[in-house]
Amino acid sequence: MPEFREKAETIFSRSTFVGDLGIRLRDAGPGWCESVLEIAPKHMQQDGYVHAGAQATIADHTAGGAAGTLAAEGDLVLTVEYKINFLRPALGERLLCRASVLRQGKTLHVAESEVYAERDGNRKLVAKAMVTLAIVPAASR
Amino acid sequence: MPEFREKAETIFSRSTFVGDLGIRLRDAGPGWCESVLEIAPKHMQQDGYVHAGAQATIADHTAGGAAGTLAAEGDLVLTVEYKINFLRPALGERLLCRASVLRQGKTLHVAESEVYAERDGNRKLVAKAMVTLAIVPAASR
Amino acid sequence: MPEFREKAETIFSRSTFVGDLGIRLRDAGPGWCESVLEIAPKHMQQDGYVHAGAQATIADHTAGGAAGTLAAEGDLVLTVEYKINFLRPALGERLLCRASVLRQGKTLHVAESEVYAERDGNRKLVAKAMVTLAIVPAASR
Amino acid sequence: MPEFREKAETIFSRSTFVGDLGIRLRDAGPGWCESVLEIAPKHMQQDGYVHAGAQATIADHTAGGAAGTLAAEGDLVLTVEYKINFLRPALGERLLCRASVLRQGKTLHVAESEVYAERDGNRKLVAKAMVTLAIVPAASR
Repeated sequence: MPEFREKAETIFSRSTFVGDLGIRLRDAGPGWCESVLEIAPKHMQQDGYVHAGAQATIADHTAGGAAGTLAAEGDLVLTVEYKINFLRPALGERLLCRASVLRQGKTLHVAESEVYAERDGNRKLVAKAMVTLAIVPAASR
Repeated sequence: MPEFREKAETIFSRSTFVGDLGIRLRDAGPGWCESVLEIAPKHMQQDGYVHAGAQATIADHTAGGAAGTLAAEGDLVLTVEYKINFLRPALGERLLCRASVLRQGKTLHVAESEVYAERDGNRKLVAKAMVTLAIVPAASR
Repeated sequence: MPEFREKAETIFSRSTFVGDLGIRLRDAGPGWCESVLEIAPKHMQQDGYVHAGAQATIADHTAGGAAGTLAAEGDLVLTVEYKINFLRPALGERLLCRASVLRQGKTLHVAESEVYAERDGNRKLVAKAMVTLAIVPAASR
Repeated sequence: MPEFREKAETIFSRSTFVGDLGIRLRDAGPGWCESVLEIAPKHMQQDGYVHAGAQATIADHTAGGAAGTLAAEGDLVLTVEYKINFLRPALGERLLCRASVLRQGKTLHVAESEVYAERDGNRKLVAKAMVTLAIVPAASR
């Protein structure tokens, strides 16, 4: 579904913060988005696990990608708030994230994101987030 | 209060993720911690504001610093979950964060973090978080 | 400030759920609201403390009252989401809640609520919430 | 699975707050729990929908039931914090809730709850919550 992927790509390519961390888009469709982060030493916290901030950033940004697939051309998608539970230590070669929109509104979307750590081919759910996003129409800016 | 500051410093200096982003400890005392991030292009999202992930990382990590000031030597402080509201666009020269412990328990602490953006000498509250942290005693590991 | 109090009163008097629980408005001003609940056996959970649901309801509804003081005549204030930490067991004669608006927007407000339990004249902070509220203009319905 | 249902039943039958609201257990198994609330006028907020507090109470308490199925005899299950998004207006004859444990730990469980409104035989997801619960062993009290 090239148009949905394209919309998500815009959201990933324009954010230097996310690009600098190494978070990349994998795929996207109507109301969902998947991303990946190859884990490197720079993502670590003091005890050798992936820092909560890196997990939260992939969860939040991928939720933005999922909401972005439903946005009209030129609309901004902004995170209003999110909450995230860290379920297990994040260890492995990469983080994978899948976000999907739970509720599509006129001005607010709600999405949830699941973050998995992949290690030797096994995936474990390491974090889960719920994200509220505002749609700011291009016309109103 | 050198001992509290020292405990917080351990939490800041050992995390490569936080160091790589540029988040630094400012000060700390019993149950509180302050940090700073000089805003650079790498912290931006697609529309020129500081990315939610950078704001959340300083909020979460500074809450960890505040909880860390109350921890015994060798105890680990781990983020169980947090939630964050983004209140205003984060624009300016730097982010300042102050976290304080709302509730100190045997195994769980709860802290709140306020993130301010400083611009031309004015500070605006741009994000607020509540963070639940687990204390993992050195002995149990 | 009679007009602010009146606006908050509308929000309290029209909700049968809140009235049935026994939650009453104490006072309100521009962007803030205070309420009280006299604790009765019907508010308890299985272990003799006030149920999390009663604490959350007073926190959420009082945040709605605080946001309501800023709303135009006829506007609806709806809770989009909230998060709440339960800090200490809620024991005593009454719950007191104070909510204040952290951020006032065109379509979204963010408020925080502190819930205190009063026992023998002493107050303890037992819960804290952050609440996101949508303003639905009368004209749009 | 009678033993799991029995454990959940203890959590429902001992809470006067939940019984008074009319929330009842439907079924439970290892790590999950289902409940129901027949909607009555007393559950309403000012605009004719089910009050957020009633939705949050069923979400939170059913998460407690799900965590309770995994608890040892005599252990207490306490809500540490939760967050809930209200996705659509809750209208209909009844609320149904299903909670399941996402992460089972030694001292902390994390569960998620979905709340559905049933109307003329159709179910709609109206709220979703993530709940962090502490396990307090009988021996430690």
